[in-house]
Amino acid sequence: MTAKKAALTIVDVTLRDGSHAMKHAFTEEQIRDTARGLDEAGVPYFEVSHGDGLGGSSLQYGFSAIDELKLIAAAKEVCQQAKISVLLLPGIGVKEDLEAAVTAGAEMVRVATHVTEADVSKQHIELGRKLGLKTVGFLMMAHMAPTAKLVEQAKLFEEYGAEIVYAVDSAGALLPYEVTEKIGALRQSLSIEIGFHGHNNLSLALANTLAAIDAGASYIDGSLRCLGAGSGNTQTEVMAAVLDRLGYETGVDLYKIMDVANNVVAPYMPRPQEITGGSLILGYSGVYSSFLLHAGAAAKRFQVDERDILIELGRRKAVGGQEDLIMEVAAEIARS
Amino acid sequence: MTAKKAALTIVDVTLRDGSHAMKHAFTEEQIRDTARGLDEAGVPYFEVSHGDGLGGSSLQYGFSAIDELKLIAAAKEVCQQAKISVLLLPGIGVKEDLEAAVTAGAEMVRVATHVTEADVSKQHIELGRKLGLKTVGFLMMAHMAPTAKLVEQAKLFEEYGAEIVYAVDSAGALLPYEVTEKIGALRQSLSIEIGFHGHNNLSLALANTLAAIDAGASYIDGSLRCLGAGSGNTQTEVMAAVLDRLGYETGVDLYKIMDVANNVVAPYMPRPQEITGGSLILGYSGVYSSFLLHAGAAAKRFQVDERDILIELGRRKAVGGQEDLIMEVAAEIARS
Repeated sequence: MTAKKAALTIVDVTLRDGSHAMKHAFTEEQIRDTARGLDEAGVPYFEVSHGDGLGGSSLQYGFSAIDELKLIAAAKEVCQQAKISVLLLPGIGVKEDLEAAVTAGAEMVRVATHVTEADVSKQHIELGRKLGLKTVGFLMMAHMAPTAKLVEQAKLFEEYGAEIVYAVDSAGALLPYEVTEKIGALRQSLSIEIGFHGHNNLSLALANTLAAIDAGASYIDGSLRCLGAGSGNTQTEVMAAVLDRLGYETGVDLYKIMDVANNVVAPYMPRPQEITGGSLILGYSGVYSSFLLHAGAAAKRFQVDERDILIELGRRKAVGGQEDLIMEVAAEIARS
Repeated sequence: MTAKKAALTIVDVTLRDGSHAMKHAFTEEQIRDTARGLDEAGVPYFEVSHGDGLGGSSLQYGFSAIDELKLIAAAKEVCQQAKISVLLLPGIGVKEDLEAAVTAGAEMVRVATHVTEADVSKQHIELGRKLGLKTVGFLMMAHMAPTAKLVEQAKLFEEYGAEIVYAVDSAGALLPYEVTEKIGALRQSLSIEIGFHGHNNLSLALANTLAAIDAGASYIDGSLRCLGAGSGNTQTEVMAAVLDRLGYETGVDLYKIMDVANNVVAPYMPRPQEITGGSLILGYSGVYSSFLLHAGAAAKRFQVDERDILIELGRRKAVGGQEDLIMEVAAEIARS
């Protein structure tokens, strides 16, 4: 590849999406060591929050071992150039959480909503801008909406003042041709920058990221050693190597990003991010990972295959909060 | 996807490429259990041999714990429909090995050569046909040859009588656009069927396989839970799920292939097939995995970064047998 390619901005989510895989038990030392490595490797942005965003520490989403504001401050301490992002899901996090995160050192906020619910984000996007943050709209479970709906919702984010809008493949369910279609439509319809956040449940996180870039995305997420929910994310250091081979500018030093992945993150990972039975069927059915545990319990109770339950939930487009549906579906399968 | 897609033939290589990851120590019981699972899941072909093919058991390539003819016979015992393939690298395996493998139950042979050396395979291809085997040419390290050279070599295989010819991405170094170009050229230039064998060093094994299918490949390799050399292969059960989503016919039962992956193979894997520092740099530099250990030793001796050694070896297009070059390169880097 000789042609000069557009510059891409990598956002590393090891210290946020990885929080799921760590059962929200990151220590300040782990955060500092990882943050230092990301900073020295030239990663421009990385995210630090509870896996479910600011304020996520709770009985429902899992309590954080260490308060996330402390973790953000620990990360900030060691950064020379990298900027810290925080995730905020309106309803889980509140405006005061964002203000406190900014005091602790955050310079970017990603306001995340279900793909059909961008309208709950207006005041949070406005607050992000008012606080002087790089302000991002983050449309989760992007595979669940037809492309026209995704574009409509992304336009709401743009209208509220977001500077970037992401299509987020939370369930790792998208196939490359679908990413091409969705990101291409966003690129055509919006004037702000477009981002893509992939998961590896179908072993296509990097392929989807490359499809997104080809279709016009300029912000791309990854996590070191894939540390994240489900089968984990696009692997940051592998993405850096492949983008280098393809001739893209990311500003990331390949050896240094490999070193933080393999020498800092790998040793604290509780388990490798393989594609197992559970994570594969989540990607295949397009169901979010929080359903897996409940489906397993329902499968046992009704003596049915949990995969049948998850696939049926995917067919019904079940979303977070509809966990009651799981028992209903399991009972129906048992009867049929 | 509503359009009916062409049928694809999956060849599972867990019990051959996986032999590398198992240090060539498969037991008959592991072989039987895996073979039974593959057979019941409807996989049409699977490969059983030493990782380096028939006759690979040796000081240089690693001794097999159990004679591979016994392993082939154990696999054959439990198969109702699946056919057993063997790999043969002329020079490592000899014609008598192939005859013995046929007696033990093999019905397909894949004659493997370096991408520029198909001409060493003539008599083995002819023998495969004479023995009534499905006979395949297998061009390894396909990333090292320009497309025109790859096509020229594939045509030799066709001329000798091969029924299928594979482009084999042994180092996991190919990017999807390169696969599209190579497989497309093979499809245009040959009348026999085309196959693709991927490795996951750059997290693109499945993406490359999809690119190969789009460009005209009809035989595709995978291994359960990625068990194989380097970062492992395209993950068979994930490939089955994605091909199902895309509307392709493979004849493979998704739940059953998942069960053999997760209940039979995962428990005997010595380690997960993650993309670590070593495997990533092999894919990035396009160097075969046998160089990794030697490069590590040379790096220590000359106090240089092993990644610099591997990348320089890739630049020089070093191939198996040129291990002497490693010390030379390390010494040069140390001087510069």
